[in-house]
Amino acid sequence: MPGGPLAISLGDPAGVGPELIAAAWVRREAEGLLPFCAVGGPELLAEAARRRGLTIPVMPVMSLDEALDCFDRALPTLAGADGAYRPGAPDSEGAELALASLEEATRLTVAGEASALVTGPIAKARLAEVGFGHPGQTEFVAAACGMAPRDAVMMLAGPSLRTVPLTVHIALSAVPAALTSDLIVHKARIVAAALARDFGIDRPRLALAALNPHAGEEGRMGDEEARIIAPALATLKAEGLEVTGPHPADALFAPRARAGYDAALCMYHDQALIPLKTLDFDSGVNVTLGLPVIRTSPDHGTAFSIAGTGQADPGAMIAAIRMAGECALRRAEAEL
Amino acid sequence: MPGGPLAISLGDPAGVGPELIAAAWVRREAEGLLPFCAVGGPELLAEAARRRGLTIPVMPVMSLDEALDCFDRALPTLAGADGAYRPGAPDSEGAELALASLEEATRLTVAGEASALVTGPIAKARLAEVGFGHPGQTEFVAAACGMAPRDAVMMLAGPSLRTVPLTVHIALSAVPAALTSDLIVHKARIVAAALARDFGIDRPRLALAALNPHAGEEGRMGDEEARIIAPALATLKAEGLEVTGPHPADALFAPRARAGYDAALCMYHDQALIPLKTLDFDSGVNVTLGLPVIRTSPDHGTAFSIAGTGQADPGAMIAAIRMAGECALRRAEAEL
Repeated sequence: MPGGPLAISLGDPAGVGPELIAAAWVRREAEGLLPFCAVGGPELLAEAARRRGLTIPVMPVMSLDEALDCFDRALPTLAGADGAYRPGAPDSEGAELALASLEEATRLTVAGEASALVTGPIAKARLAEVGFGHPGQTEFVAAACGMAPRDAVMMLAGPSLRTVPLTVHIALSAVPAALTSDLIVHKARIVAAALARDFGIDRPRLALAALNPHAGEEGRMGDEEARIIAPALATLKAEGLEVTGPHPADALFAPRARAGYDAALCMYHDQALIPLKTLDFDSGVNVTLGLPVIRTSPDHGTAFSIAGTGQADPGAMIAAIRMAGECALRRAEAEL
Repeated sequence: MPGGPLAISLGDPAGVGPELIAAAWVRREAEGLLPFCAVGGPELLAEAARRRGLTIPVMPVMSLDEALDCFDRALPTLAGADGAYRPGAPDSEGAELALASLEEATRLTVAGEASALVTGPIAKARLAEVGFGHPGQTEFVAAACGMAPRDAVMMLAGPSLRTVPLTVHIALSAVPAALTSDLIVHKARIVAAALARDFGIDRPRLALAALNPHAGEEGRMGDEEARIIAPALATLKAEGLEVTGPHPADALFAPRARAGYDAALCMYHDQALIPLKTLDFDSGVNVTLGLPVIRTSPDHGTAFSIAGTGQADPGAMIAAIRMAGECALRRAEAEL
C-alpha cells in the first residue's frame, strides 16, 4: 500500500457516516477495497455498527501502521476524540467531534501518512456553529494543502457519468455574474489534468454545458454562451484539449450524449447534480481534483432522518473508498 | 372516436416530423394508437416515408371523416399545402408549409373537428422569419383558443417522470425575477386540474423544486425558497391540494423521490428538462395543460442533422400520439 491506508473522517456522528464506514468494512473483500482507517470515535463506531446489526470488531489503533496490520480482521480507528452515538439528534458536541475527525484525517493525508482522504458527510450549518469557516469540506481540504479554493475542483462521479459544477454553493441568481471565461478555462485545465493523472484517461474528452435553455438559441435567450463559454472553449482547444460545447444542457445527459465525453463541465450546482443523482443516486462520489492529495466523499448528506435505522445505502461510501484507493494506486505507480 | 381523429401538424418538412408521422402510422396497431390524420403535405409525406424505407400508402383526404374511414389501410393526410422533401435543408418555403400545417391542424382541433392536436417539431427561428409571432407552439395554441400564454402550461411527460417548467424560454439570468408566488400558484392549479381531468389522477401529488442549491440552505444561498416558493406552497395547501416542497432539485428525480409525486414543478427550463431527457430521452412528450383543447408534441426538435437518414427514433412521436388519444378518450368519457 503506497503511503499508508486511506484515512476516513467520521462525518457528523448523528448522521449516517459512522454506520456506513462500518458497513463498508464488512464488504471490504467483496468490493476490493484497499485498507482504510477511521479517524476517531472508536466507541461511537462500535455502537453505530451494533445498531445496524453489524457485529464487527472495532480496533482502536495508535498509528496508521497499526491500522494496516489489523485491517483484515477489524475496523481500525485512530484512538482519540470520541462521543456518544445519538443518531438523528445532531448537537454541538457531535459537530466538534466531526470537525476534529476531519482535521486529523486531513492532517494525516497532507502529511503523506495516509495515501488518500475519504470524508464522511457533515452538516455544514452545524459545523459553522462550532467555528468551521469554510463553505464546505472541499474548500477546507484545499486550505489545508495551502491552495486557494478555486484550485480545488469538485467532480461528481458515478457509474454512468462524471460532472463538474463550475460554480457551486451560490444562489442561482449569482451564477451568471460568477461565470467567467477565465474560471471555465482554469477549472477545465484542472479537470483534464486530473482525469489523466488520477483516472487513467489519457486524452480526456470534456463537454461544456450551456447556461441558458437551448444554449441560448443564438442569443435569443441569454448571451453567456457567446460571450463567456465560447471564448473559453476556443482557449482550451488552442491548448490541445478535447473540448466540445456549449451543449444544450437538457440533452447532454441522455445515454447517447454521455458516450461522447469523459466529464461534463456544468455552469451551476444543480445542472451538475441533477443528472448525477438522477442516474446514480446511491453510488455517486464527490472527488476533489487539483490538489496534491486525493480526497473523495460519498455524494450524499448526513441523512439524519434515517441514521441508526439501517436503511442508509452504503453504495456511495464504498464507491468513495474504492475510488480513493484507485487514484492513490495510480499516483503511486506514476511515481515509480 | 370522440369528435374525429387526432390532427397532426407536419412540423418543419426539412426535419424529422414527416418521417416520424409515417413511422408512427406503421406501428399504429402494435402501439394501440387512435386514428390520426396528418395536415397537409401528401407528396412530402410519401417521399419522407420512402426515404425511410417505408412503403406505405399515403392517402390525401378532403375531410377528417374521410381520414377516419381510411386510417386502417393508409396514412391519411388532408390535401392542401405541399412542398418538396429536402431533409436537412430548411428553407422559407418549408417554414411556410410548417406554419400552414400548424394553423390548419390547430383550427380543426379548436373547432372540435379533431379530438386532439399533435404538433410536429418546428424550428422557431425559421418560423419567426415567415411571420410566426409566438415564442413557441404552446403559446400559439393558447392564442388560438383565446387564452393568455400564462394559462397554457407546458408539461413534459415520460414513462419515468412528469415535470413542469414554471418559467420556460427565458435566459437563466431572468429566472429569479420572473418567479413569483402568484405564477407558481396559478400554474400549480392548472397542473392539478389537468392531471385529474386528462390523466385520470384523482388526487394529484405535486412536488415543488427549489430554485437554489440545497434549497438555499436556510437562506445561505438565496432566499427565493422562503420569499416566493413557501408562500405559494401555503396557498396551495390551504386550497386542499397535495403539494410538497421546496425540495432540493438535485435529489428530486432519484427513483425513490419520484415515487412520491405525480408531477414535479420546476423553476426553470433545464431543471425540468434535464431529468426528463436524462431518463426518457426517446419517449418524452410535451403536453399543454390548461387549454380547452388537448395538445401534445414529441419532446424533441427538428433534428435536421439526421432527417432523411432513418436514424430518428419514433418513440416520442408515438408516445405523443398515444397520450393525445388517451386524454381525448378521458374527456369524451367525462362528457357522457
